[in-house]
Amino acid sequence: MTQTSSARPAPAATAGPVLVVGAGLLGASIGLGLRHLGVDVWLQDASPTAEAVAQDIGAGRSCRAAGPAPEPALVVVATPPDVTARTVAEALERHPGAVVLDIASVKEAVLEGVRELGGDLTRYVGTHPMAGRERSGPVAARGELFTSMPWVVCDSGRSSPAALAAAKNLAVDLGATVTFMDAREHDATVALISHLPQVMSSLLASRLQDTPLHHLSLAGQGLRDTTRIAASDPHLWVQILAANAEPVVASLHGVRQDLDRLIATLEGPEAPGARLDIAQLIAEGNAGQARIPGKHGGAPRAFASLTVLVGDVPGQLARLLTEIGEIGVNLEDLRLEHSPGQPVGLAEVSVLPNRRKELVEALQERGWKVVQ
Amino acid sequence: MTQTSSARPAPAATAGPVLVVGAGLLGASIGLGLRHLGVDVWLQDASPTAEAVAQDIGAGRSCRAAGPAPEPALVVVATPPDVTARTVAEALERHPGAVVLDIASVKEAVLEGVRELGGDLTRYVGTHPMAGRERSGPVAARGELFTSMPWVVCDSGRSSPAALAAAKNLAVDLGATVTFMDAREHDATVALISHLPQVMSSLLASRLQDTPLHHLSLAGQGLRDTTRIAASDPHLWVQILAANAEPVVASLHGVRQDLDRLIATLEGPEAPGARLDIAQLIAEGNAGQARIPGKHGGAPRAFASLTVLVGDVPGQLARLLTEIGEIGVNLEDLRLEHSPGQPVGLAEVSVLPNRRKELVEALQERGWKVVQ
Repeated sequence: MTQTSSARPAPAATAGPVLVVGAGLLGASIGLGLRHLGVDVWLQDASPTAEAVAQDIGAGRSCRAAGPAPEPALVVVATPPDVTARTVAEALERHPGAVVLDIASVKEAVLEGVRELGGDLTRYVGTHPMAGRERSGPVAARGELFTSMPWVVCDSGRSSPAALAAAKNLAVDLGATVTFMDAREHDATVALISHLPQVMSSLLASRLQDTPLHHLSLAGQGLRDTTRIAASDPHLWVQILAANAEPVVASLHGVRQDLDRLIATLEGPEAPGARLDIAQLIAEGNAGQARIPGKHGGAPRAFASLTVLVGDVPGQLARLLTEIGEIGVNLEDLRLEHSPGQPVGLAEVSVLPNRRKELVEALQERGWKVVQ
Repeated sequence: MTQTSSARPAPAATAGPVLVVGAGLLGASIGLGLRHLGVDVWLQDASPTAEAVAQDIGAGRSCRAAGPAPEPALVVVATPPDVTARTVAEALERHPGAVVLDIASVKEAVLEGVRELGGDLTRYVGTHPMAGRERSGPVAARGELFTSMPWVVCDSGRSSPAALAAAKNLAVDLGATVTFMDAREHDATVALISHLPQVMSSLLASRLQDTPLHHLSLAGQGLRDTTRIAASDPHLWVQILAANAEPVVASLHGVRQDLDRLIATLEGPEAPGARLDIAQLIAEGNAGQARIPGKHGGAPRAFASLTVLVGDVPGQLARLLTEIGEIGVNLEDLRLEHSPGQPVGLAEVSVLPNRRKELVEALQERGWKVVQ
């Protein structure tokens, strides 16, 4: 599964020619993936440089350099969210025989925009490959970017079966897992599972702006995990949050109610019921966190974890994982904990609960320090 | 470094007998670590069961079962935060020759409590080993729990040099990294780097209580990371947040100001300046996140990352890391991304920026799929 790069890919279900409008990270990655399947791909970008770079990395042919392009069977609009609706409407008008998809991470605003601009909704399908990155631009593009990632497909309400099939085929060709939702349901979902976490992480991380570094040096994995996505690109997130403001605000009002309740409680922590209120907030967090599905989208499953001491030199972690493989226990998750001030790492290994005891004993027999 | 469990440990700087009051996860772990160094440890817990279990796992001798205990040179109070001050004061009175430490995760409330109870502050030092876990109880105890973790030592303001030395020796004996701070500075620090992340993670996760599971199945690593610590124990966090309410509330007021600003902005996303406000919030998050120190408490350092496709079977990840070791590039961090719906994993490998290109090429030569 890791070494199929030389294997012959399955034939593409996507029929070309495909015109990709917007040759950034996602557009160029789609081009690369389709080219790998032998599909005829043409690239168009407002930036001549991006268009040229995308062609150079093999994402398809530049309309400027290699045009005129043939009439496309499929147009994939991969522009920034704030110009997506207009670009879709133009493509629908310019290519009356083509199915037009977009891949913006918000869907209802784009659908409304296309409708207002009089676009032919029977040939339009909004989609969202959930494979964003902090990095951007065609240079960062990879054909496998969408492998095993969710790809949401949103019927416009009038999308033709052929248009929906084209959207599904593209996602499947690129190795993604397809989920069908309408635009409103999609936007409400990403507001909660993607946009709200971004906002909360940014709100938390912004509190650290004036913290002395020697205080931050005491930070543990909890702070690192909760603030990791706060490193995301402001320019992109302005467009996402502005375009999905309504459901995000609805969630934020809920957060503010809980926050106000907690602040009031903590301002009188000895008041009757105060401790109960605090416990309830934490317990509500327990309940929500426990509902996040486990690996492979399966039902939530609690894994048992053990933490092993590993030296911070090349090969140590590899040897640990090799020996876990030899012991025959499947690794469900792995997390490295950083070690302030010492050249030692802690590897937290998650396994099925009924395998933990066996693994701990086998590792200790082999001389590993199982910390907890 | 991973295989020293059989090596002879350095002689303990801590002089026994040591009385550990409170035989939970931390108290029993301290006992185990000291016993491993040959120190005479006695255990006392309000729960006869916990005291017996702690003795059974080798954390020391039960005062009930093996007493009477000799007069201790050092008393370590490892009770729940809400009874710590009283327990410290009692120990100071009962053992006039002993240094008394506590390890509660809040320090000023304990210090004030001991002072109000008339405890001898020259023999008292508040400390905080930053090695908490979701799991609790003596069964979860491990002697290496504190290895390479920060351990904050707080002068009472009147602590004697001998008492401070005893606190430092205990932390060093257990392999921790010692940091000196006064109680107020400690509490302000953990409010920001530990208590605020807990609150934000709980506030976020509690929004997920009513979300359909098929929506949560679209969740990516961002949601998982930001909500992981929301699984923490409500009973413990009630005590921590109540005891450190003042600095936590101060931070929460800052969060609420930013949140109110964002809500107002998102309620009129087309208003002039709205997008600038949103961008500023995200950028402030970037700035705060970038200040979190890197591995080993060093200065923040940006690593270059690459993501490699690995099959979800035992040994695949190990082979990847083995080959990275063979290529001779040191792994700075590793993160497994879950793959909704497909039996494939994505390993995000972080390395020094100037080694990334070399590693990507070497891995691709060996047939690995480098996704991004």
